[in-house]
Amino acid sequence: VAVFQPVDAARPVRWGIASTGGIAHDFALALSLLPDAEIVAVASRSAAAAEAFADTHGIRHRHASYEAMAGDDEVDVVYVGTPHSRHCDDALLYLHAGKHVLCEKPLALNHDQAARMAHAARSRGRFLMEAIWSRFLPAYVELRRLVAGGAIGDVRLVEASFGFAAPFDSQHRLFDLSLGGGALLDVGLYPVQLAHMLLGPPDDVRGVAHLGPTGADEQSAVLLHYADGPLAVVLASITTAYACTARVSGTKGAIDLPPRFHCPAFLDLRVGTTTTRLEVPYDRNGLHYEAEEVHRCLRAGDAESVVMPLADSCAIARTLDRAREQIGLRYPGE
Amino acid sequence: VAVFQPVDAARPVRWGIASTGGIAHDFALALSLLPDAEIVAVASRSAAAAEAFADTHGIRHRHASYEAMAGDDEVDVVYVGTPHSRHCDDALLYLHAGKHVLCEKPLALNHDQAARMAHAARSRGRFLMEAIWSRFLPAYVELRRLVAGGAIGDVRLVEASFGFAAPFDSQHRLFDLSLGGGALLDVGLYPVQLAHMLLGPPDDVRGVAHLGPTGADEQSAVLLHYADGPLAVVLASITTAYACTARVSGTKGAIDLPPRFHCPAFLDLRVGTTTTRLEVPYDRNGLHYEAEEVHRCLRAGDAESVVMPLADSCAIARTLDRAREQIGLRYPGE
Repeated sequence: VAVFQPVDAARPVRWGIASTGGIAHDFALALSLLPDAEIVAVASRSAAAAEAFADTHGIRHRHASYEAMAGDDEVDVVYVGTPHSRHCDDALLYLHAGKHVLCEKPLALNHDQAARMAHAARSRGRFLMEAIWSRFLPAYVELRRLVAGGAIGDVRLVEASFGFAAPFDSQHRLFDLSLGGGALLDVGLYPVQLAHMLLGPPDDVRGVAHLGPTGADEQSAVLLHYADGPLAVVLASITTAYACTARVSGTKGAIDLPPRFHCPAFLDLRVGTTTTRLEVPYDRNGLHYEAEEVHRCLRAGDAESVVMPLADSCAIARTLDRAREQIGLRYPGE
Repeated sequence: VAVFQPVDAARPVRWGIASTGGIAHDFALALSLLPDAEIVAVASRSAAAAEAFADTHGIRHRHASYEAMAGDDEVDVVYVGTPHSRHCDDALLYLHAGKHVLCEKPLALNHDQAARMAHAARSRGRFLMEAIWSRFLPAYVELRRLVAGGAIGDVRLVEASFGFAAPFDSQHRLFDLSLGGGALLDVGLYPVQLAHMLLGPPDDVRGVAHLGPTGADEQSAVLLHYADGPLAVVLASITTAYACTARVSGTKGAIDLPPRFHCPAFLDLRVGTTTTRLEVPYDRNGLHYEAEEVHRCLRAGDAESVVMPLADSCAIARTLDRAREQIGLRYPGE
């Protein structure tokens, strides 16, 4: 059901970029390679940062505040790449201004925020999607195809680990709870979203963690239980290097995702004693696949992506909330 | 401190085998290759089974009950290879009769039983050890040496999965709670013991499981939390094939144990971008290493093995109890 006027096929989709950080640069590079994308604006709290980013990427409108870009009539859709703790406010700002929004993952700090964002988008008839780029990569398209086709039978166990030793001191945002720091929200989201993609929302969540001196979870381990039998294991760390692999085990076989499993270039399908390697490389920096999904939806008048719907994003936020209840982690203001 | 008269170096260690099942056969084969071991007796509830086993392995004394072998004056040490649910009673029978005991893993169904067994051994000055053969294999000796030597820094995460699709129907002992069936006790013990070997007893345990129609856990996932930061992940299944690998991640590197991690022939030491493969094959069926430890202890008058002490076995049983509390699994009579 179309809830908004689709973007005319005769002109590019016009993007605004909210943030000038590393991931915003990567996303702007991805957009610059799409013929039907135009980056018309960038916003930052710092005029100088906006100017520098705009010069780098050839962007005409430079806004010295996020609010200013909300009034930019040329912007169709805003990419929100601000810190986790700002996602909700920034996305609401743009949705309320009538913009569509692609919001960097995690969509929000918690389920309450995610639900408010989803409500704002739905009630105003605007597109909103969490930028979980993995789901749009060829590897994940192939993974869904294999599983849906019964290649490994019924999924019984999803395991994934994402851990690295952050080369940062305790002042870095990764360790700052006021910015939504910690392993679970930053990298734990990838295993959690994989489990949700394949199994949906769990009925039970258990977890343990090591909370560091700033209160942020430096490593977390979370188990998801599904009423009909499957389990999932989520391992996340910002202080220790993990294998960064994933494995989906089914009743007839298994699929291994090599490091780093959130953007793999191949899959190993294991059935009996036979392993089949499926090459599924992605081109450029990989972020353009999610941008192309946004384009497709905006051209078609779809307010949500079927690959990354808001119900999934809200369920993921709920699972992360439940995991944080288990490990005793709250963000300031919760 | 010697608590019993050591077995004279001038004669073999004289073994009795309690059980005639598959693992008892394997253990008898292992003993038959040790020059200083003599299998003098076998006991079974079935006279015919005892006769057949004795004929196969060239054993002189055939006992048609476990009790009868308790009175066999030629037996120094009994290998208890009966079903899990009998370990406690059978080990107590032989300890009370003055025999030393090597008891197949799991030592007992729960911590209460394990503690009673440990008390019986200690109070009577008899040797007792849980037959966790993995700890005595070259791979595990090398693993301990690497970790103790700081090869991977401080251990932060221990992960291991042991799952297979049992080719048995629901009548099999693996699914029978009255025999201590289920994934956790049968194969989950291997990841649990690995975590205990490297990190000791956890301060918190969380778990989820799928209980099948017989009430046995068909797959279980358990997390161990340690107060000083490390975590461990235990995955066990008797209905789904898992990777059956283990990984020990530290602050400086990691060690991978290939399938099946409980008896690997090599270890991969990963530090930075360098992987070093350490070949650590074992000979024969691998069970003789634990038997040699028993011999060493009995010759030296040591009532416990320092590699597999009773405190560890009791702690493992406690961890498994706590995991079962999490998943809501009780054995009959508990």
